[in-house]
Amino acid sequence: MTPAQSRLVAAARDAFGPRAAVTDPDLIEPWLHDWRGRFHGAAPAILQPASTAEVSRLVALAREEGVALVPQGGNSSMVGGATPPSDGSALILSLRRMNGVRAISAADNLAVAEAGVILSDLHEAAATVGRRFPLTLGARGTATIGGLCSTNAGGTQVLRFGTMRSLVAGVEAVLPNGAVHDGLAALKKDNRGYDLDQLLIGAEGTLGIITAASLRLFPAIAARAVGWLGLDSPEQALRVLRRLEADTEAIESFEILPAGSLAAALAYLPDARAPLAGQHRWHVLVEAVSTTAQGEGPSALLERLLESMLAEGLIKDAAIAASEAQAEALWQLRDALSAAERAQGPAAQHDISVPVAAMPRFMLEAAAACEARFPGTHASGFGHLGDGNIHFHVRAAPGMSAGQWYRELAPEVSRFVHDLVVAAGGSISAEHGIGQMKRAELERLAAPGDLAALRAIKAAFDPHELLNPGKLVTLAPAGATI
Amino acid sequence: MTPAQSRLVAAARDAFGPRAAVTDPDLIEPWLHDWRGRFHGAAPAILQPASTAEVSRLVALAREEGVALVPQGGNSSMVGGATPPSDGSALILSLRRMNGVRAISAADNLAVAEAGVILSDLHEAAATVGRRFPLTLGARGTATIGGLCSTNAGGTQVLRFGTMRSLVAGVEAVLPNGAVHDGLAALKKDNRGYDLDQLLIGAEGTLGIITAASLRLFPAIAARAVGWLGLDSPEQALRVLRRLEADTEAIESFEILPAGSLAAALAYLPDARAPLAGQHRWHVLVEAVSTTAQGEGPSALLERLLESMLAEGLIKDAAIAASEAQAEALWQLRDALSAAERAQGPAAQHDISVPVAAMPRFMLEAAAACEARFPGTHASGFGHLGDGNIHFHVRAAPGMSAGQWYRELAPEVSRFVHDLVVAAGGSISAEHGIGQMKRAELERLAAPGDLAALRAIKAAFDPHELLNPGKLVTLAPAGATI
Repeated sequence: MTPAQSRLVAAARDAFGPRAAVTDPDLIEPWLHDWRGRFHGAAPAILQPASTAEVSRLVALAREEGVALVPQGGNSSMVGGATPPSDGSALILSLRRMNGVRAISAADNLAVAEAGVILSDLHEAAATVGRRFPLTLGARGTATIGGLCSTNAGGTQVLRFGTMRSLVAGVEAVLPNGAVHDGLAALKKDNRGYDLDQLLIGAEGTLGIITAASLRLFPAIAARAVGWLGLDSPEQALRVLRRLEADTEAIESFEILPAGSLAAALAYLPDARAPLAGQHRWHVLVEAVSTTAQGEGPSALLERLLESMLAEGLIKDAAIAASEAQAEALWQLRDALSAAERAQGPAAQHDISVPVAAMPRFMLEAAAACEARFPGTHASGFGHLGDGNIHFHVRAAPGMSAGQWYRELAPEVSRFVHDLVVAAGGSISAEHGIGQMKRAELERLAAPGDLAALRAIKAAFDPHELLNPGKLVTLAPAGATI
Repeated sequence: MTPAQSRLVAAARDAFGPRAAVTDPDLIEPWLHDWRGRFHGAAPAILQPASTAEVSRLVALAREEGVALVPQGGNSSMVGGATPPSDGSALILSLRRMNGVRAISAADNLAVAEAGVILSDLHEAAATVGRRFPLTLGARGTATIGGLCSTNAGGTQVLRFGTMRSLVAGVEAVLPNGAVHDGLAALKKDNRGYDLDQLLIGAEGTLGIITAASLRLFPAIAARAVGWLGLDSPEQALRVLRRLEADTEAIESFEILPAGSLAAALAYLPDARAPLAGQHRWHVLVEAVSTTAQGEGPSALLERLLESMLAEGLIKDAAIAASEAQAEALWQLRDALSAAERAQGPAAQHDISVPVAAMPRFMLEAAAACEARFPGTHASGFGHLGDGNIHFHVRAAPGMSAGQWYRELAPEVSRFVHDLVVAAGGSISAEHGIGQMKRAELERLAAPGDLAALRAIKAAFDPHELLNPGKLVTLAPAGATI
């Protein structure tokens, strides 16, 4: 621990009690790595403020002392966004003690949740007032509101509700000088200059530390229907989605996967059964919901809408879950895809997006291009077709060691995939963010003007790189201007 | 014209032809004032690029020459946001020649419109493909896409569709160094760092010049119903809205006005008739729409939903327009409110928001507080109750001259109103922006940390204040940090 770090830790304990800082290495250790074990950092202490006022004071003190801070919630980043630098130069600033739901109102359809509130706890709090916070994802039992805001998280319900950016009415955040930005008032219209809430959402803690958020709630779900479709191509899948959307606003999820991914999930999950009897090249999980018990329920709706497409041959086969247990079983197949594919061998995974209309073709052409360029590999994508966002995996050729793959080939594969994405007008990070994993690729591929703008914003807020250093973007070389 | 300005004008004509710059004072004159005649500026020339490449070149040249530029579309700002400085130090950069709809797709529900496209022209273009761009406002025949994006415009359909920020999938903009930011790809998910699109939306041309936008389209309206309600209080009006929203997603507009505003509109509009027979203290215009011709139409829906509230006495009286002509007549009453109130005498007008739930009480208490503090004045608000946004007008005491009012009392009244708004956790600019009219008030009332952040962003992008100088925010005093 440097002398400056020691002074900061001592000041935290003096001001806010012994719980305000953890220095026991055994207690720190679990928070030094990302959950996939790809990034390993070091930190001599974890600061644990219990309130916005404490965060404000610690950030101001850290700036005075020149100590870098790595904000951390559930530590479920997919891109090493919450892992400290490996040289121990930064302290972790945990928001986990700030886990209060400050307010929740069914009448206003709003909740104010502190940064450390775990997503599944917010789901439960909303349910108790007959409401729903619609964003959800695999890590809902771990991910926190602060991290979800800071990474503009997506998940499986984006089709209808958008990403966090659409669901956050405003944030409270501590700016790099310790000042508190209070955007919690949840004004539906507010044009007082540049939108600081929107700037902080997705900034990965590099411009300020989000301490709470006002979140939009929606009517609770009365009924849902989960269907499974077999079809011939991603292009047909998108046509099915467009047909459904023309008839109803009830579609919340539309997840595509190829036959190989389904096979991997079936092999990975004990007791899992294939949803359809026959073989199909592509599969779709579709979910429709209803917020009232009246009228045609979502199962009947889905059945009616799918019928004509089955008759036309646009869909080859379809099944609708007959019970909540069956619906859960279908979702388990979807949720297992990442882990199931990892179990098949070393792979390079890419969280990418292109315009929705271009995605069906991109899925096929990118996979073919990868397999041609890297013989023996297997490439395929699955995920959020309706959002133009898939997780595109390239698996190592059989027999290649994990070490050789990750050291030698995977980075080259990823650059190749990212080049294809950029050529298609897409994004190399659809929902996971940049963190440390994609920083070099962002710097390689961003438009020079855009990169200069990102760096200028970072320099304006945090010129000494004390907030989440090494993540998202580094400062510009001296003399660069936007 | 300064030598630097002359060189810029000459370079524009050399490179892009005679139409690229206007120097005839008669042709410039109409663009030197805001439409309400409150702000008067001077400019020796108007630059008129015809493409993004031309804007890029002109912005780069202007930076080299140190010449300030005031971007201008329809010049319908409510806050002097497009009026040049009075000392002639800036040239106007008109986007009006860039008026092409580059692409429009019903399948993708997207249009790409250049900055100079007039809103009503976009409405028509969308209609030709069976789609609709939902944002609309009184100045739709004048306001341009670039200005609407740059001011994050609102209007009367925000209740369901949000402001421009929600409707813009991405923007193309020329950054202060001439680099082009291309965010037009309309990716539904894109987490490549700070969101430059969102930063440029609402930045009033002070960080870059928006040259085109990807805009979200929605299904065209098949039928609409416009109703007029008489009731006792804003609080009852909000209860009616909440009841409607619990039963349907069809409500697009919900505009409140007091009896006095209706009387002013009836006096102002020739041939206008009162929508209801009796007298009521408060009135509401409500619009419900349907995008299909099937099922219960919006008139029947509205009638059914209002019936029980009439029976309960929550609504005192209601009428639903029986024809499109009647519907238009109701909307004309609403659209005439600003002009009608101006015709009653000098007034101070405020575009303000507070949290929706707090608005009913705020409307009454702020009016009473104003009238008590400034004897003889008449204070009242009307507008977008469901957005928590009203236009709050304070009319001068009878007999006071316009000169005396605007010079002496109106600024004090506005500061008083803004203090009430801030105390209620609201915004002094809900939808009109800051421009030059509200800059001093923003600097007086913004949280110090927020103001420092706005200034730091401005300094990072435009350290010499060459883009729309004097609007939104000025640079920080030397040495200030965020």
